[in-house]
Amino acid sequence: MIAADLSSWVPVEPGSDFPIQNLPYGVFEQQDGEPHIGVAIGEQIFDLHLAAEEELFENVADRAVLQAPTLNALLAAGPGVWSGVRSRLADLLVSDSAELSAESRDGFLVAQSAVRMLLPFAPGDYVDFYSSLEHATNLGKILRPNTEPLLPNWRWIPIGYHGRSSTIVVDGTPVVRPNGQRKGENEPTFGPTRLLDVELEMGFVTGSGNRMGTAIPVQHAGDHIFGLVLVNDWSARDIQAWEYQPLGPFLGKSFATSVSPWVVPLDALEPYRVRGPEQTPEPLEYLRTSRDWNYDVTLTVELQTPRMRERGLPAEIVSRSNFKYMYWNMAQQLAHATCNGTAVRAGDLYASGTISGPDPQSAGSLIELTWRGERPLHLQSGESRTFLEDGDTVTMRGFCEAPGKPRIGFGCVRGTIVPS
Amino acid sequence: MIAADLSSWVPVEPGSDFPIQNLPYGVFEQQDGEPHIGVAIGEQIFDLHLAAEEELFENVADRAVLQAPTLNALLAAGPGVWSGVRSRLADLLVSDSAELSAESRDGFLVAQSAVRMLLPFAPGDYVDFYSSLEHATNLGKILRPNTEPLLPNWRWIPIGYHGRSSTIVVDGTPVVRPNGQRKGENEPTFGPTRLLDVELEMGFVTGSGNRMGTAIPVQHAGDHIFGLVLVNDWSARDIQAWEYQPLGPFLGKSFATSVSPWVVPLDALEPYRVRGPEQTPEPLEYLRTSRDWNYDVTLTVELQTPRMRERGLPAEIVSRSNFKYMYWNMAQQLAHATCNGTAVRAGDLYASGTISGPDPQSAGSLIELTWRGERPLHLQSGESRTFLEDGDTVTMRGFCEAPGKPRIGFGCVRGTIVPS
Repeated sequence: MIAADLSSWVPVEPGSDFPIQNLPYGVFEQQDGEPHIGVAIGEQIFDLHLAAEEELFENVADRAVLQAPTLNALLAAGPGVWSGVRSRLADLLVSDSAELSAESRDGFLVAQSAVRMLLPFAPGDYVDFYSSLEHATNLGKILRPNTEPLLPNWRWIPIGYHGRSSTIVVDGTPVVRPNGQRKGENEPTFGPTRLLDVELEMGFVTGSGNRMGTAIPVQHAGDHIFGLVLVNDWSARDIQAWEYQPLGPFLGKSFATSVSPWVVPLDALEPYRVRGPEQTPEPLEYLRTSRDWNYDVTLTVELQTPRMRERGLPAEIVSRSNFKYMYWNMAQQLAHATCNGTAVRAGDLYASGTISGPDPQSAGSLIELTWRGERPLHLQSGESRTFLEDGDTVTMRGFCEAPGKPRIGFGCVRGTIVPS
Repeated sequence: MIAADLSSWVPVEPGSDFPIQNLPYGVFEQQDGEPHIGVAIGEQIFDLHLAAEEELFENVADRAVLQAPTLNALLAAGPGVWSGVRSRLADLLVSDSAELSAESRDGFLVAQSAVRMLLPFAPGDYVDFYSSLEHATNLGKILRPNTEPLLPNWRWIPIGYHGRSSTIVVDGTPVVRPNGQRKGENEPTFGPTRLLDVELEMGFVTGSGNRMGTAIPVQHAGDHIFGLVLVNDWSARDIQAWEYQPLGPFLGKSFATSVSPWVVPLDALEPYRVRGPEQTPEPLEYLRTSRDWNYDVTLTVELQTPRMRERGLPAEIVSRSNFKYMYWNMAQQLAHATCNGTAVRAGDLYASGTISGPDPQSAGSLIELTWRGERPLHLQSGESRTFLEDGDTVTMRGFCEAPGKPRIGFGCVRGTIVPS
């Protein structure tokens, strides 16, 4: 961990997501179109590609790892390299650093506002879990009324499924309203989804993996988790409802999954590690963790309609949740996903599933917030919404904050709906 | 298509899977460990890497495409390049070819028995469909007795789900019996699966894809399908049964999926293109095909137990099926998978789902062949089997054959169960 009282020679405004204690990794491009790995600090990016060129990480990481077009090689390099690079970054960026001259050091910085952020990692496999008790309960009540909302396996298994890797996109990528089959009176119809929804999630990105045929034990999960991003698992509820039996979600989800551009290292989140909800019944042995694996991350979902944009109204927060509510934690998810010998590769994405909390306003999807459209959201613009309309922009934000601790933020993940 | 009456200067025994009319692509390595792309002919491989080195494909494809470590660059190059390379291969390999001198040409050949075959493509996304009417009906009867076996969506949608890319392995890779949760009396237990099964499938490998947000229309699907492989979708039925609601199969499938090493181009299969089963009700517009999209491929599943191996008994055929039975065809599968704008990438794998035919012996899985273990298979060795035991080897084979037409074979996909 980077000590809470350190500060950087790079200006960092109070309330910034990116103090020196964060140092999240991303990939950006400038006019030349060459992807560079960089680290966010304040409103700047420290260009790791250039720093590696100057041999500033000579004994810490191979230059090729820091000059790659994605984070995958760094992810594959493993925890020893991750902590080496992080500690070297802190040495270079701390206020009283003697490493870089005052004249030269600004040459490694570029303003975040001047670049285009890219998808930071090339995802191999993408798994989406279903690990919020409140979300699973809400969906059970909505989709299977008059039955026990939680299925019998839910409290034993971190339920999950494989999603689509090819459509994982970075913050800001427009989302085309998907076409698909929707159940009809006598026969299904084909056309644009009428029930376009979001799912507020966080996801972890894996580092070096295991050998196929072997498991990652729950107590070693931390060595394989590099860091976290915000995830918006866009969902077409009508397509999903009609297709999902018996093999699960497919086209209702595969059209787009958006992630935030900065991967926040687990180490930066250490001050916000908290105990998760009590698990009853006690999980099976292979899922028992001896340490706390939840994180206190405040999450919000904002909605801005075209009318709000026209009138200069700000986006409106429609959900306030927290990552700490998750019933199944990341270590359990990774141990479960690999208990059958599945191979994990550097750059895989494992998303939490929708993060809903105990009160109605903390639900992480519109289907829950509006109870499948029965209770529309009334917005300050005078409009109402059940599901998303064309031109709507959804922004998810996440940050950790507590007295005496540095704020650790994730930035945001945004997407605007484009007609199909 | 390569004319049926052509033959090659490379010896091809009658009954070989690989006459000059086939020319399937694979990737092999020799002692030096360098992956080379090659084409199977008779019992030999024509080394495309070496041929490209000698500029034999100079005006047909970039050398880098043919010297890559996987087929992905060739897949991405698109149908124009595919047919150019294929036609050039035929020119080089035909009996009376004047292209290669009798002295030099053997230098491009290596015996299949002398090399190790590798996974021929690096799969991006892996989708597994559920497109055999007989299989879906059988599973419905077994898993949901006393109800209508086919769910209401099945005749409208080529049902599918995303599988695990990281554990797609080539023929011959041992399969470690997976651990997992199995439903118990009062609570689940954890341990090796007791119901290890196979699924006989074929899969298509995609070439150049679409732009995210756009669909591949059913009538253009052929431009995006490079060729086919045999697929064994290993399945742990107890793990699957306990986990699959509501999000579908996950760990019951993700531990291994085996494919045959040779990708047979669609063009080679052209003589065996046939009409599929009548589809009732008529599919929605976006799934209507004007041409035949089924293929007459004879398929077998062989089982060899350790005792059979010890006694020198040959493997025993336990299933005889045919790819032509598929209800939903490849063009419909690809059109459906992309109708929501999902991006397809070169090297994606789309598997058919278990291929079961109308009679009991044509079922493509042990759960069907033994009716969930109620009717064990009695083997010539005097043993019986319901599901797989450690040391069992499963071999799937596929070939097209008809009077007056060249035999087009897929080779085989094998796997032996190793204890966990």
